[in-house]
Amino acid sequence: MPAIHSYGFGLATENSAGEVIEVYYAHFGLDAGAEFASEVLTCCGLEPGQCGYVKLDGSLRERLRTHLGALANSEKTLVLCVLGADMPPASVAEAFLKLHLLSARLVKPHELNLNGMFGVLHNLAWTNEGPIDLDELHDRQLAARLQGRQLSVTSVDKFPKMSDYIVPSGVRIADTARVRLGAYLGEGTTVMHEGFINFNAGTEGPAMIEGRISAGVMVGANSDLGGGCSTMGTLSGGGKQVISVGKNCLIGANAGIGIPLANGCVIEAGLYVTAGTKVQLLNTQGELQRNCKALDLVGVEGLLFRRNSLSGAVECLPLQSEVELNEELHAHN
Amino acid sequence: MPAIHSYGFGLATENSAGEVIEVYYAHFGLDAGAEFASEVLTCCGLEPGQCGYVKLDGSLRERLRTHLGALANSEKTLVLCVLGADMPPASVAEAFLKLHLLSARLVKPHELNLNGMFGVLHNLAWTNEGPIDLDELHDRQLAARLQGRQLSVTSVDKFPKMSDYIVPSGVRIADTARVRLGAYLGEGTTVMHEGFINFNAGTEGPAMIEGRISAGVMVGANSDLGGGCSTMGTLSGGGKQVISVGKNCLIGANAGIGIPLANGCVIEAGLYVTAGTKVQLLNTQGELQRNCKALDLVGVEGLLFRRNSLSGAVECLPLQSEVELNEELHAHN
Amino acid sequence: MPAIHSYGFGLATENSAGEVIEVYYAHFGLDAGAEFASEVLTCCGLEPGQCGYVKLDGSLRERLRTHLGALANSEKTLVLCVLGADMPPASVAEAFLKLHLLSARLVKPHELNLNGMFGVLHNLAWTNEGPIDLDELHDRQLAARLQGRQLSVTSVDKFPKMSDYIVPSGVRIADTARVRLGAYLGEGTTVMHEGFINFNAGTEGPAMIEGRISAGVMVGANSDLGGGCSTMGTLSGGGKQVISVGKNCLIGANAGIGIPLANGCVIEAGLYVTAGTKVQLLNTQGELQRNCKALDLVGVEGLLFRRNSLSGAVECLPLQSEVELNEELHAHN
Repeated sequence: MPAIHSYGFGLATENSAGEVIEVYYAHFGLDAGAEFASEVLTCCGLEPGQCGYVKLDGSLRERLRTHLGALANSEKTLVLCVLGADMPPASVAEAFLKLHLLSARLVKPHELNLNGMFGVLHNLAWTNEGPIDLDELHDRQLAARLQGRQLSVTSVDKFPKMSDYIVPSGVRIADTARVRLGAYLGEGTTVMHEGFINFNAGTEGPAMIEGRISAGVMVGANSDLGGGCSTMGTLSGGGKQVISVGKNCLIGANAGIGIPLANGCVIEAGLYVTAGTKVQLLNTQGELQRNCKALDLVGVEGLLFRRNSLSGAVECLPLQSEVELNEELHAHN
Repeated sequence: MPAIHSYGFGLATENSAGEVIEVYYAHFGLDAGAEFASEVLTCCGLEPGQCGYVKLDGSLRERLRTHLGALANSEKTLVLCVLGADMPPASVAEAFLKLHLLSARLVKPHELNLNGMFGVLHNLAWTNEGPIDLDELHDRQLAARLQGRQLSVTSVDKFPKMSDYIVPSGVRIADTARVRLGAYLGEGTTVMHEGFINFNAGTEGPAMIEGRISAGVMVGANSDLGGGCSTMGTLSGGGKQVISVGKNCLIGANAGIGIPLANGCVIEAGLYVTAGTKVQLLNTQGELQRNCKALDLVGVEGLLFRRNSLSGAVECLPLQSEVELNEELHAHN
Repeated sequence: MPAIHSYGFGLATENSAGEVIEVYYAHFGLDAGAEFASEVLTCCGLEPGQCGYVKLDGSLRERLRTHLGALANSEKTLVLCVLGADMPPASVAEAFLKLHLLSARLVKPHELNLNGMFGVLHNLAWTNEGPIDLDELHDRQLAARLQGRQLSVTSVDKFPKMSDYIVPSGVRIADTARVRLGAYLGEGTTVMHEGFINFNAGTEGPAMIEGRISAGVMVGANSDLGGGCSTMGTLSGGGKQVISVGKNCLIGANAGIGIPLANGCVIEAGLYVTAGTKVQLLNTQGELQRNCKALDLVGVEGLLFRRNSLSGAVECLPLQSEVELNEELHAHN
């Protein structure tokens, strides 16, 4: 029985060479039964297990009419994309479908094969007139000016901002420029102006995000990332360790982590703890037990990391009290 | 004699259920005399001391014609909002009026009762086609795409950005996404790209703001908040102390404070001083006087906080020279 | 033989008083030969060595038809600006031409005389309907609201964002609000959401910029500025030293520098090194050689600055390994 990983019906933007450079999926989802899988694979000319997409001409639109809904009568370029399996994305249409699946919470970060995606995506100008191929931008900008319009470029990037595609339920995002399509925002997440969430990264549930969640980083429920705090990424800058943040954690403002953090841990404001940071391990009475590397503490819950402001040493000790989010800030998302 | 706290005539946005979800006040102000107060209270069906608003139908528009100006002939939904007293905002119209009063410098932060405002405000998608109820967003986005328009969501939040409502005199705001309606920007304030000002917070006068001013925080005249610096808020993250910054202060880049700062104080770049930070108190000769908590130094003017880069200790000593803003950067706002 | 420094043909925005407040140069360049120089100087009524601009009326448009291209038939205000020499900009048209030259990579930061530019530029509201004089903003906003349009102010500043004028080849800019016109982005530069580049500042070649490049700061090829890191500027906050960053440098997340950095240097995440920072100089075996000021180390290549997390002392030692950028992130710009 044929099955697919996922599918999407979308509106595609093409450049002047007719290449699909972006897709907005109006309807999409995970495997929806053998009959549907068989039908859409056939439409795309795919064998089971294969991935691809097709531009929908008149006859395909007719055949898929019940699935197209409001799209059916559009004069825009429509595409059907089918992922027969979770393989490295080989086209813009496939890559965008995977990013949609993440932001719609149909899959979680790290659950999709995104290998090679950077090479597949086009670097585009994202504008108030839609995405534009960079080779065509200058002429479009000049033409707009001559016609008295402002063609404003809000981003030059391979990834659009999430909110122009999907706004999942129960979130606030103060400045949407800072959340890429492909981010996963758990219900109850607030991303403040200084917050940032990359693709394939996000939050499991309620969270106050005023710091930066790098690609690949997941943050547990009821955690608080303070203003300007940093989670070290693995894409650049030398970090090798995949970072995560547990539940009920607090990373203070302007602090940072280069290690995964277990549940209930706190990093003091302004302190950056990297894998190589040596720390003085204290007991609950504040007595020195021994020195160790921060990396040795990975997996231990309920730790407070701070810098002793008289000795200058980074200390780590068991926490007594728990971190609490301000309910009023989240109850009404 | 009836008196009111304040009033506003505005254009309201309603969702498809007819609820007012946002108001742009074209004309508004504080108490304008007993006759006016009596008139507008009556129009709203309010007793003295009560707060509320009314949608202006034809007869009310006629009656208020002289106050409506250019609004009178609008086909949009018009509202008159009257605050008979400074009570907790009970409607979107009241909350928005208070936010307007703050940003127009008619009242200062902490002078208004904003209790319960988070529960009153709707979480909205702020777009290039105006604010949109989140329940209606997907259909609106799809419809726009089908018609070849880009419906771009710049924020998903309870607060809009200030500059779409009010730009007070003598300010620069490099990235307006980072100043919420309800912020108070003193004349001569420059907010650079990394600056941020929350509602019910701001600056008393000339200031260079490249750091973050949290809700409730006021900054005195001629102070400089360096790039990425943090003022600890009281809304989340555990801070209990209400923070303020005095006149002629300098908070260095990537620094932060969890204590109020008196006039003429300096925090070295990169140093985060929290209430619990223990500091070595030095005299002007650099000799250690005693250790104390940063919280013990609240109210003392002209202090320099730094971390001794050899001993690692946080030190505090009296400052000799004064902080000066670069006049050229502010003279031409 | 007359020569000029540079020239530009552009579309100008005027305020209601008829003053030019902004110019978008459609065609511009450096000196293009004596004949051209003579022609454009004459059109502007300038002597060799002088700077100025002229609004192009019908006869000048006719005379310059071959140079105007698509502009020739525009109903907009056209200007020709000629810089006979590199003098302090005396008009908006001249200042904007210089900013264009920088962002188009025709000149590098520090190569142009920008003295007094702040006083020449107008503080404008940059909106989706183009730049607007602040005195005219409220009426324009109200009129737009009454007509059902959203007049959104994205910036209140003297400088526009670069990408509405120029997007040089081979760059990504995740959030264009954070790169001012007049920034110089070398081929292969990626500016992430937390990155920032001021005017008269930038990158020599490939770079990953997730931190802030202040006015006047240049970053060498193949360097990486981590998330939220700071380069101290000279415009405000007291910095006197002109900062630069060499090739193959890495400034860690939330770190900062108040000194120029030579090739191949690394600043550990979270560490702010100012000119006055005292450091322990170590050899490659980690043995203390002597203490010195960070300023004394200016010009020395291949240094690692870190804070010893047990002693709290800032240490500096020779680096063994080199910094590498992630090729996949840059190869496809």
